[in-house]
Amino acid sequence: MKKRIVLLPGDGIGKEVIHSAKDVLQAIAEEYNHSFCFETHEIGGAAIDLYGTPLPETTVDACKQADAVLLGAVGGPKWDNNPSHLRPEKGLLGIRKALDLFANLRPIKGFKNLLHASPLKEEVVSGSDLLIVRELTGGLYFGTPSERRDNGNTVVDTLSYTRKEIERIVDKGFQAAQQRRGHLTSVDKANVLESSKLWREVVEEKKAQYPDVAVEHVLVDAAAMKLITNPTHFDVIVTENLFGDILSDEASVLTGSLGMLPSASLREDGLGLYEPVHGSAPDIAGKGVANPVAMILSAALMLRYSFQLEDEAKVIEDAVQSILDTGFHTGDLQVANGRLVGTAEMTKLIVDYI
Amino acid sequence: MKKRIVLLPGDGIGKEVIHSAKDVLQAIAEEYNHSFCFETHEIGGAAIDLYGTPLPETTVDACKQADAVLLGAVGGPKWDNNPSHLRPEKGLLGIRKALDLFANLRPIKGFKNLLHASPLKEEVVSGSDLLIVRELTGGLYFGTPSERRDNGNTVVDTLSYTRKEIERIVDKGFQAAQQRRGHLTSVDKANVLESSKLWREVVEEKKAQYPDVAVEHVLVDAAAMKLITNPTHFDVIVTENLFGDILSDEASVLTGSLGMLPSASLREDGLGLYEPVHGSAPDIAGKGVANPVAMILSAALMLRYSFQLEDEAKVIEDAVQSILDTGFHTGDLQVANGRLVGTAEMTKLIVDYI
Ligand SMILES: CC(C)[C@H](C(=O)O)[C@@H](O)C(=O)O
Ligand SMILES: CC(C)[C@H](C(=O)O)[C@@H](O)C(=O)O
Repeated sequence: MKKRIVLLPGDGIGKEVIHSAKDVLQAIAEEYNHSFCFETHEIGGAAIDLYGTPLPETTVDACKQADAVLLGAVGGPKWDNNPSHLRPEKGLLGIRKALDLFANLRPIKGFKNLLHASPLKEEVVSGSDLLIVRELTGGLYFGTPSERRDNGNTVVDTLSYTRKEIERIVDKGFQAAQQRRGHLTSVDKANVLESSKLWREVVEEKKAQYPDVAVEHVLVDAAAMKLITNPTHFDVIVTENLFGDILSDEASVLTGSLGMLPSASLREDGLGLYEPVHGSAPDIAGKGVANPVAMILSAALMLRYSFQLEDEAKVIEDAVQSILDTGFHTGDLQVANGRLVGTAEMTKLIVDYI
Repeated sequence: MKKRIVLLPGDGIGKEVIHSAKDVLQAIAEEYNHSFCFETHEIGGAAIDLYGTPLPETTVDACKQADAVLLGAVGGPKWDNNPSHLRPEKGLLGIRKALDLFANLRPIKGFKNLLHASPLKEEVVSGSDLLIVRELTGGLYFGTPSERRDNGNTVVDTLSYTRKEIERIVDKGFQAAQQRRGHLTSVDKANVLESSKLWREVVEEKKAQYPDVAVEHVLVDAAAMKLITNPTHFDVIVTENLFGDILSDEASVLTGSLGMLPSASLREDGLGLYEPVHGSAPDIAGKGVANPVAMILSAALMLRYSFQLEDEAKVIEDAVQSILDTGFHTGDLQVANGRLVGTAEMTKLIVDYI
């Protein structure tokens, strides 16, 4: 298989962990006889420094022509006080919209050896394994008007969805549930929002197409509670953009594995952008100590979702599990009787396993 | 002191626990020589059944003439499939707006004997004591337009705030922090929403008026994480309506004391509506087993915030703590070597202590 992959290192530790993903993918290419060609472009703070914009057109064009995109992380204190169009995260929002990456998938599964790092009691969190399917290109993030009025004395943002936008993400949720344990939780605020009422209607209509999936509706406030009191209740959660932002961050700290969590943002045709859930960690950037696992697991998701290379994805995931089982870990994790390694050594261990 | 109190039992266990609050307030009145006069009105499902609307005008009028309002809870399966204008929660939203109860205060503090019921590890949650100040009459809940368009193919909701609405709730947040540990966390999504940018500006402007308060800005997704990983970090959180809805429900399950948590919804002049955080619990309604403590503690908040009767409020809180320390508890709680009691007996214990 021949594929073009765009690398967007971004800022902070993004620049380090992206190399790890590349090394691992090259190992996969050799082992399985694929040809991956890589092209690197700027986004976020790095792009602001070089080109005066968080999302240069060359970056967008390259991504549009690619088969998949890997992104490290964006942001850092250097750009925190910039005006909003010169903020690194505008690059992220921009590329999602430009590529129509409407489906954000965040699988959250704890690693047994890390469960002790969870703030939750082991008996509460043990066995939890859920997938959050978040709508990523609509809702309050992109609705207009979004502006000040009356000399700045009033401000409005707009939560808007078309029925089509809701349908395609709800379909993703159902399909994901079919491939997992057949349980879908649709999260909305239908007791208050008109948009949530339409959302709930669409879910109800789609039910018939997926008779093998059991669906429930949960209000967003109740979902925020239940994620903590009963995380094992959930299989797939599907929800709109802002609710998904809040709930997926909440869920990501439950298992103690935040530094290990990958994510995928997909377009209808399979083009995807893959990035770790963690941020650019400016405090440890440049020191060679960052945990590359979330980035490497994001590359595995790329193989699975964009290239349908399930076996190759599985090998990477097995490699990570096995290295962790052997006790190797980076400085962000605590593993009993473990062996502390840096970014490069961790990457080499995974490459060697492959 | 002479005060008129409107009781809105609502539905389910609301009807039972409201009696407990009344009994406790009557004991306080006798002991401290006050005169409280009570008037009962309908809201929610009960009002739908009797008057065909979840918020009859007689109820609104009575509340407007009262010095304070106590509300039990609204909702139940009987009305779950009603059209949205005939849903019990419309009564709740309506009374908040009609009385201009813009400031919702939810103190969340664990009881030591109940901490074992928390899903969090004791070392994570122990010592946490926070207050969420939620804006209650603006934002996505009440913004217009909120409607379907294009034959139902598009839907919009509007998140709107005036600068004044933001200022008055931010003031409440600062003032609450002054009376507590002097730390205020303002939660927004300023990297995406225009409304959050104005919110953040207002907080920055107000800083100078409250030099004794340390302020930080936290994004709502990060706040949802930090509430779990580090709940003791927080003192006062101030935020807009929907973020407050989600975060306060999330926070309410951290300490294992959900059935014990009161809330206050205040107007600028001190008029307030007080209600337990828990719902109407239709599964145990009518059995005399409901935990009346959240309702009774809500009555204590009424004495404190609407009537400035701090001593009287404190006595109720001490009574609850002491009864709990003695081992008495209702069926929703598990207390080691405890003595199980029903609603009436629990109420009598608290009344006798007073
Ligand atoms: C950086 C920010 C705009 C972004 C979002 O809110 O979508 C981030 O929190 C995320 O979840 O990827
Ligand atoms: C019932 C519902 C409309 C209400 C809200 O969202 O405000 C409830 O969740 C609350 O927090 O009091």
